[in-house]
Amino acid sequence: MTKDAEALQAEVDRLRLEVQTLEASHDAQKITVGNYLLTRLAQLGVTSMFGLPGDFNLGFLDLVEDHPTIDWIGNCNELNAAYAADGYARVKEHSIGVVTTTFGVGELSATNGIAGAFSEMVPVLHLVGVPSTVQQKARPILHHTLGDGRYDAYVKAASQFSVYQAIIMNKNDAPIQIDRALTECITLARPVYMTLPTDIVYQEIGSQRLLTPLSRSPPLNDPATEDFVIELIHQRIKEAEGDVVVLVDACVIRHDVKQEVFDLLKKTGFPVYAAPMGKSSVDENYSRYGGIYVGSITHPDIKGKVENAKLLLSIGSLASDFNTGNFTYRISTRRQIELHSDHTKVQFARFEGIGMKRMLPKLTERLKEFYPIGSNIEVPPFIKQLPKQDTPVISHLWFWPRLSFFFKEEDVIVTETGTANFGILDIPLPAKSILVSQILWGSIGWSVGSCLGAALAARDINMGRVILFVGDGSLQLTVQELSPMIRKGLRPIIFVLNNKGYSIERYIHGKHRKYNDISEWNWTSLLKVLGDLDGTLSRTYTVRTKKEVSDLLDNPTFANADKIQLVEVIMDALDAPRALEVQAELTGKGNAYAGK
Amino acid sequence: MTKDAEALQAEVDRLRLEVQTLEASHDAQKITVGNYLLTRLAQLGVTSMFGLPGDFNLGFLDLVEDHPTIDWIGNCNELNAAYAADGYARVKEHSIGVVTTTFGVGELSATNGIAGAFSEMVPVLHLVGVPSTVQQKARPILHHTLGDGRYDAYVKAASQFSVYQAIIMNKNDAPIQIDRALTECITLARPVYMTLPTDIVYQEIGSQRLLTPLSRSPPLNDPATEDFVIELIHQRIKEAEGDVVVLVDACVIRHDVKQEVFDLLKKTGFPVYAAPMGKSSVDENYSRYGGIYVGSITHPDIKGKVENAKLLLSIGSLASDFNTGNFTYRISTRRQIELHSDHTKVQFARFEGIGMKRMLPKLTERLKEFYPIGSNIEVPPFIKQLPKQDTPVISHLWFWPRLSFFFKEEDVIVTETGTANFGILDIPLPAKSILVSQILWGSIGWSVGSCLGAALAARDINMGRVILFVGDGSLQLTVQELSPMIRKGLRPIIFVLNNKGYSIERYIHGKHRKYNDISEWNWTSLLKVLGDLDGTLSRTYTVRTKKEVSDLLDNPTFANADKIQLVEVIMDALDAPRALEVQAELTGKGNAYAGK
Ligand SMILES: Cc1ncc(C[n+]2csc(CCOP(=O)(O)OP(=O)(O)O)c2C)c(N)n1
Ligand SMILES: Cc1ncc(C[n+]2csc(CCOP(=O)(O)OP(=O)(O)O)c2C)c(N)n1
Repeated sequence: MTKDAEALQAEVDRLRLEVQTLEASHDAQKITVGNYLLTRLAQLGVTSMFGLPGDFNLGFLDLVEDHPTIDWIGNCNELNAAYAADGYARVKEHSIGVVTTTFGVGELSATNGIAGAFSEMVPVLHLVGVPSTVQQKARPILHHTLGDGRYDAYVKAASQFSVYQAIIMNKNDAPIQIDRALTECITLARPVYMTLPTDIVYQEIGSQRLLTPLSRSPPLNDPATEDFVIELIHQRIKEAEGDVVVLVDACVIRHDVKQEVFDLLKKTGFPVYAAPMGKSSVDENYSRYGGIYVGSITHPDIKGKVENAKLLLSIGSLASDFNTGNFTYRISTRRQIELHSDHTKVQFARFEGIGMKRMLPKLTERLKEFYPIGSNIEVPPFIKQLPKQDTPVISHLWFWPRLSFFFKEEDVIVTETGTANFGILDIPLPAKSILVSQILWGSIGWSVGSCLGAALAARDINMGRVILFVGDGSLQLTVQELSPMIRKGLRPIIFVLNNKGYSIERYIHGKHRKYNDISEWNWTSLLKVLGDLDGTLSRTYTVRTKKEVSDLLDNPTFANADKIQLVEVIMDALDAPRALEVQAELTGKGNAYAGK
Repeated sequence: MTKDAEALQAEVDRLRLEVQTLEASHDAQKITVGNYLLTRLAQLGVTSMFGLPGDFNLGFLDLVEDHPTIDWIGNCNELNAAYAADGYARVKEHSIGVVTTTFGVGELSATNGIAGAFSEMVPVLHLVGVPSTVQQKARPILHHTLGDGRYDAYVKAASQFSVYQAIIMNKNDAPIQIDRALTECITLARPVYMTLPTDIVYQEIGSQRLLTPLSRSPPLNDPATEDFVIELIHQRIKEAEGDVVVLVDACVIRHDVKQEVFDLLKKTGFPVYAAPMGKSSVDENYSRYGGIYVGSITHPDIKGKVENAKLLLSIGSLASDFNTGNFTYRISTRRQIELHSDHTKVQFARFEGIGMKRMLPKLTERLKEFYPIGSNIEVPPFIKQLPKQDTPVISHLWFWPRLSFFFKEEDVIVTETGTANFGILDIPLPAKSILVSQILWGSIGWSVGSCLGAALAARDINMGRVILFVGDGSLQLTVQELSPMIRKGLRPIIFVLNNKGYSIERYIHGKHRKYNDISEWNWTSLLKVLGDLDGTLSRTYTVRTKKEVSDLLDNPTFANADKIQLVEVIMDALDAPRALEVQAELTGKGNAYAGK
């Protein structure tokens, strides 16, 4: 089907739903509201749902537990559950993450996780079991209320961090609300919030609507404007004599244009670099891929190549501080073309409503004539290299390159805010691998929950190993989420970077301050305590030297990842990847503790 | 000082502050904004501050770490930190809890903890380290932002759960904002929210204001109205021929009238009962104390006594579902007098602005003539009694009464939502003990963080042992907070009720559902893994029979609580205290999963 036909089809589907809304009264086949929602989720490919029970969602959870294709993942707390839903959605493209909580106590515990999904553009449904519609109208001082009758306080808070709030208050409105919320979720790639009252779950409605799938198809671009923009871009590139560099970023992943972008790259031959949040959106083994561009922090070999090109074609950019070397791009607006999900910028001109998903294929056709020039622009090799270092101490400088020889195709790699997020930038990842990290939001502890969700998604879509890198400090925030990993038979490899506290913070401020210390834990006992009671389901290791790291990575039993494994990696408190050292200094300056 | 003089003094103090605001320019002695705040907190008796570092609060944390009397308690995550601040404030009367977080990720993680303090009326300051004022005005896409420039989203969410938001944006406004926020916090006994930008922390301001302490004194009652109300109450009691029962509830504790109430009780001789949330507000060994009244769930001996009295004098009531046996009080409004912090109700008439703190002493004087009648009303004995049960299995029916023989004066007892919150109701607690529980908000996991804060407060004010009862399910949410307890040398006794999952939920819905199961953990290894690495700082036990419980409780080493101790108590998945069985059924009915 062509893109235009696809859009028309989407419009047809939308209209069908409207017609069905009107016809609902004649609808013979009945389904409960709860199962209507679950059917929609199953249609979107949801196979795991995250969350915790609470008395306002228990009736709904019966339906989940009885559902043939959806599995209930009981999490240890709601924040971790939201993180898991986020990780699941990141790995399982075209699906969404779902977190179910209970009124007040449960939903508010998830706030930071949902806000993170908002910030990082991850499609997550936050479903909240709430008191019956009768109680919502009478507003008694139920448990989990604020004691003052304000039953709308939670949705008010949630509206700050979701693109749509579906407040279901009667059965007839329910399917419309559900469809609307899910459509917003998948098209905008952002969280939506939904309340399901106890007395609505089992009410029956017509099921006819379910025959029409929900459409994720973005709106059509206005054809005349789109043509104009494509011509304009073509003209600018011609003026630049084809001296173009492509920079891919977060939204290539979030707004689902990896394939379209790769087509453009192959047909134009233009060199491509990635911003940190765009890492792994383009196969890092692709010969025309040059590595990571992050403003002033960029590796010198790469920096000039990007900044000296006559034109930068930026796709899906998200210009946050940590994603741009603290806003230090050295590329004037005059030399930039930006493609976004819902608009396009050519130098200073903005074209609202011209989205990249639909324009990219046409643009590729128009630009492929530049292949002879594009494919001749020099690209520095971005390849695995292991630096020599004489000391046995495990340094960041050596550790990450060493890991690059361990990674395989289809690995899912999850990195936490802290040294890990920076360490991973300097090394190439294998083809078809996925990098999952949270560079804009940067909530520590996120990676552990996220890894749980990522591992479930990875199992579902037959990806390879799941490998987590988390600091000792971050792991303390969400450690209990190792438990569902064990219970669900997942087999991630978990590297715990034990550097005695919050190293990234030490680099920013308070190098020797006690507030940057943490309690020393017995990391290697964690899996046994949190679920692998007889020690048969997991393996644990501590590595203190480069040799110990290498031996472990070369051990086929370890590399096979047939059980959940945790590796404690002993590192210096004051060691960090190069990129972090620079970023930390810039961040420290921005915070400007005046008078110090 | 008389109460009226006290109020005048408060007004004088308020005016002085205003004058000093105006005179600030002439103020010679300088202090940084950060230290101004810390001085105010120290004046309020704050000795521990909770939270986590983040780059937007690090500069401020230098000041905390260097402060002579305030200790920084690095928590494992922000939700737990908020819980700890809540527990601290509950035990340390006349002080407040303080939780410090970082912009976005940190503060939003604490949302549920702060909302709980709001709901349960606990004075907590939520202090957030935020970007510099320069950045707040320019609104770049910094890490921890939503990526769309909405720098006001977090305060909007916070405003749902705090009585005041102090948004500090310049040094001159800072002391006024700080004083205002803290005054609201202590007088309304509710959370306040404050943002401290990185570039303001070290700016210097005059310190003169600090010489005037902040006043917690509630506003004066209008004398004529107050006189009228006192006369009216007197008249009603006379009509009732002195047949009065007093019911104490949550706000006796929260609004600081324990002493005033006890005076009234002794001078009138009226019998007194407590709602669950008022438990321990009156010495439970007091001869005129009859136990817990909780509507239809009340023990039969007690129920008639309360419901058949001609008049009920209710003090500080908070009529939530779990606090009233699901709204089943059998006492008509015609027979009720209610004293609250900011109003009084006599039968159907409401007197706005007549607060109990100031009226109580006068009321006591007026009512003491009823002593001969009041002191002759029969009160059923509420005494320790150990029921006989032949089986060795540890039942709730036996466990809680057995514990009542273990508790001592000045113990601080913390109970979690679940079976524990109900079990504790049926037994009397010793004089001067404090019960800390969260019956209205009911967020599981809260008790663990709260216990940390309670233990620090208890140590500070020389209370006795701190004893926590937490379900296995709840402990999984916040388990990491055991770690700071160990690091800070605290010595709580932690009873983990291991009944294989969420028993309270099983009683409400889904008795045999998998979603009510949890992963089995190795509970007795937790303390060693989370900080007591060489096993010298803690002791751990498992008890499976009544005899094992009794032997342990009788063991002086255990009872002395000279180290942190964890006791795993093995119980049946389908056993629960009597009160819970009834409440669960009522709650289940209210949720009305129609169609099932
Ligand atoms: C929820 C949350 N709280 C606090 C922070 C502030 N913060 C950012 S990184 C960091 C320390 C991370 O330490 P660790 O995981 O040990 O990583 P390292 O840098 O040592 O590898 C902290 C506390 C945050 N980003 N998120
Ligand atoms: C943060 C939060 N999430 C979910 C709930 C719903 N909830 C209430 S009680 C409970 C189970 C508690 O189980 P446990 O601690 O084992 O106590 P038990 O009743 O078994 O003693 C749950 C999940 C809640 N109250 N708070």
